Amino acid sequence: MRVELVTVGDELLLGVRVNAHAAWLGQRLAEAGVEVVRNVAIGDERAAIAAELARARSQADAVVMTGGLGPTGDDLTREALAQAAGAALRRDRRLERTLRGRLDELGVPAGPGLLRQADVPEGATVLTNEGGTAPGLRLDLGRAVVYALPGVPSEMERMFTDSVLPDLLARAATSQATVSRTVHTAAMWESGVARRLSDLEGEVAADPGLTLAYLASPGRVGVRVTGRAATRKEAGSLVAPVEERVRELLGDAVYGADGESLEQVVHRLLAARGATVAVAESLTGGLVAERLTAVAGASATFLGGVVAYSTEVKTALLGVPEPVLQTSGAVDPEVARAMAAGARDRFAATYGLGVTGVAGPGFQERRPPGTLHVAVAGPGGDHAGRSPLLPGTDRAHNREQAVVHVLDLLRRHLL
Amino acid sequence: MRVELVTVGDELLLGVRVNAHAAWLGQRLAEAGVEVVRNVAIGDERAAIAAELARARSQADAVVMTGGLGPTGDDLTREALAQAAGAALRRDRRLERTLRGRLDELGVPAGPGLLRQADVPEGATVLTNEGGTAPGLRLDLGRAVVYALPGVPSEMERMFTDSVLPDLLARAATSQATVSRTVHTAAMWESGVARRLSDLEGEVAADPGLTLAYLASPGRVGVRVTGRAATRKEAGSLVAPVEERVRELLGDAVYGADGESLEQVVHRLLAARGATVAVAESLTGGLVAERLTAVAGASATFLGGVVAYSTEVKTALLGVPEPVLQTSGAVDPEVARAMAAGARDRFAATYGLGVTGVAGPGFQERRPPGTLHVAVAGPGGDHAGRSPLLPGTDRAHNREQAVVHVLDLLRRHLL
Repeated sequence: MRVELVTVGDELLLGVRVNAHAAWLGQRLAEAGVEVVRNVAIGDERAAIAAELARARSQADAVVMTGGLGPTGDDLTREALAQAAGAALRRDRRLERTLRGRLDELGVPAGPGLLRQADVPEGATVLTNEGGTAPGLRLDLGRAVVYALPGVPSEMERMFTDSVLPDLLARAATSQATVSRTVHTAAMWESGVARRLSDLEGEVAADPGLTLAYLASPGRVGVRVTGRAATRKEAGSLVAPVEERVRELLGDAVYGADGESLEQVVHRLLAARGATVAVAESLTGGLVAERLTAVAGASATFLGGVVAYSTEVKTALLGVPEPVLQTSGAVDPEVARAMAAGARDRFAATYGLGVTGVAGPGFQERRPPGTLHVAVAGPGGDHAGRSPLLPGTDRAHNREQAVVHVLDLLRRHLL
Repeated sequence: MRVELVTVGDELLLGVRVNAHAAWLGQRLAEAGVEVVRNVAIGDERAAIAAELARARSQADAVVMTGGLGPTGDDLTREALAQAAGAALRRDRRLERTLRGRLDELGVPAGPGLLRQADVPEGATVLTNEGGTAPGLRLDLGRAVVYALPGVPSEMERMFTDSVLPDLLARAATSQATVSRTVHTAAMWESGVARRLSDLEGEVAADPGLTLAYLASPGRVGVRVTGRAATRKEAGSLVAPVEERVRELLGDAVYGADGESLEQVVHRLLAARGATVAVAESLTGGLVAERLTAVAGASATFLGGVVAYSTEVKTALLGVPEPVLQTSGAVDPEVARAMAAGARDRFAATYGLGVTGVAGPGFQERRPPGTLHVAVAGPGGDHAGRSPLLPGTDRAHNREQAVVHVLDLLRRHLL
């Protein structure tokens, strides 16, 4: 089943916003074994939307659209759908009543703009919006079924989960299934991962139902195995043995698979030991704490952190010995270790993490950007450190990699 | 000039990664007054890439492609470009020598995969890659010029800035120009912004050369004014008076324009007063510090922060009085104020920021997700607070909004 995503909104073309909808939908569909073959972002222009639909009607089995269903003048998806289907737009009286009721509750006057949201192309099915006012639409167009969803993320996600995905899976049941599995590694280079998998890569290439791909992001490399077969079950049984081999070949560099994040894994390992963690950061400026607390329920294992950006703070709040800072400066393995020990101590945590280095773009204390020292302090003076030199001067990139290095150091320490 | 972006990579379809390239390129092109009319993400499949190019050759003036130029087997952009142009791929001997030299420096053996990067479709121009091994390509295809850039962000960005944009602007000089300007507001609802601009919206709608659009992101609303005219100068003079009106109507809710971020504005205001800041966060878990330190040179005004995730830490590290925590719990305006004062005190900063609340998804201390208290503590007991109720239970969304609220509170306090 060929699924295309169409995201409507000038802001995507202007780069004001990244296309998070396309990523979210791509993930959900991949998890469900449905293959997205392309995603397109186009502007708030009726002709452009209609042209996209005209192309998709002969090339796709399903189109998931988002955006352009709201009440303002630049919301043109309804009109474009009607144009592409050669259908008239009709005011849906039941929808209008529901809409008026909801606006009444919110204390918003029901102006003509807002009521446009009750206009439906003839032949389309209305998808209820539990979280907002703009309803979704489903419409058959050529060989394709088109789902139009509102652009507000929470509304779009709920409508997709409740209405679109079940419908799509029912239609997909008869066509080919795809199963993908991504194994994640931390603190390895893409070329190193590829070297270890080179024989396996050759074997996979010989099987038309299988593909292998590398997905590199700062500090991490994912290995994605995709299988295609008549059923989801068959596709899954193509993928499973290859995943097994990938895990064997990469050993403990592998921290998880699919939607599992490094921070979730760290929380799980800590919780299993009844342990807690606190962090002391300079170069990452709060990013380690931010990642650990992005996980719901983080307070069970995460106690807190200190962002020690100025040198004085490293001594005052973390107890890093002044002589060490004077001899070695703030960018030193010894400082990372003292920061980790200080965090452990001040927060009375089982483990402390320390991160220091140079984020860039410039030099600091005559050390080049990409210099990194991370450390873990554990019970009984137990500790570990790592000092990789990160390539490049990109501040955001270096900070992202540093987070992966320190969390991965803790993970391996906990194994 | 109609520009299309084509991003190649299965990971974009699978949603493993958001399409940050498309956003970055969209921004750069919008700033340069060039209009992107669509962006497409497609998989690592030669036929799909070639089909996309076949469509674009008659519909676009320029196509900027990224990805698929690397050394691995799933890098197929070169082959697809050759196929679309009906040209042969030829090994470029000079490029091969350079490539061998670079690999030699890196100590990487020059295998056949890596050397494929020296293959060039006949008629294409090579774009030098200063940061990596995969060269870029420029090729005329029908009415369109196609630029193919590597997928590594730093290499892509440098090549775009150095080689693609100047060439594109020289070609665009004869066609219609677009100028866009986005004014950013913080801590206002989209409907509130739209209400204040409703008259202006009507006037703009009557001018065919102008459009107005709203861009909402957590805690922020952008108002984008776009002008189209024969020259960049004319388009700019359509936009300027409208921007002026938008700023007047929205008053001090406006914090900046275009690429300017709220955190940059805060740093600038602090630096202008020779002031510093320190932060104390619970619900945001390090995100406020992370945002402030994402700006290069942050250490001039940012001293550090404490992530006080557990209640004990609020007392031990920030001096929040125990009786306050016992009477009111950790989620209280009084606690936010004491945290701000504690951060100011412990870091010896001019200003302290405090953030507490419930990020979600669940209740905490019987307070609903979205409960937020932010505070600023300044010199001489001077302070300010804000306690908006954020809509929704989305943890990431609530945290993002909380950062905007606390930074905006400091910004208005500094004005």
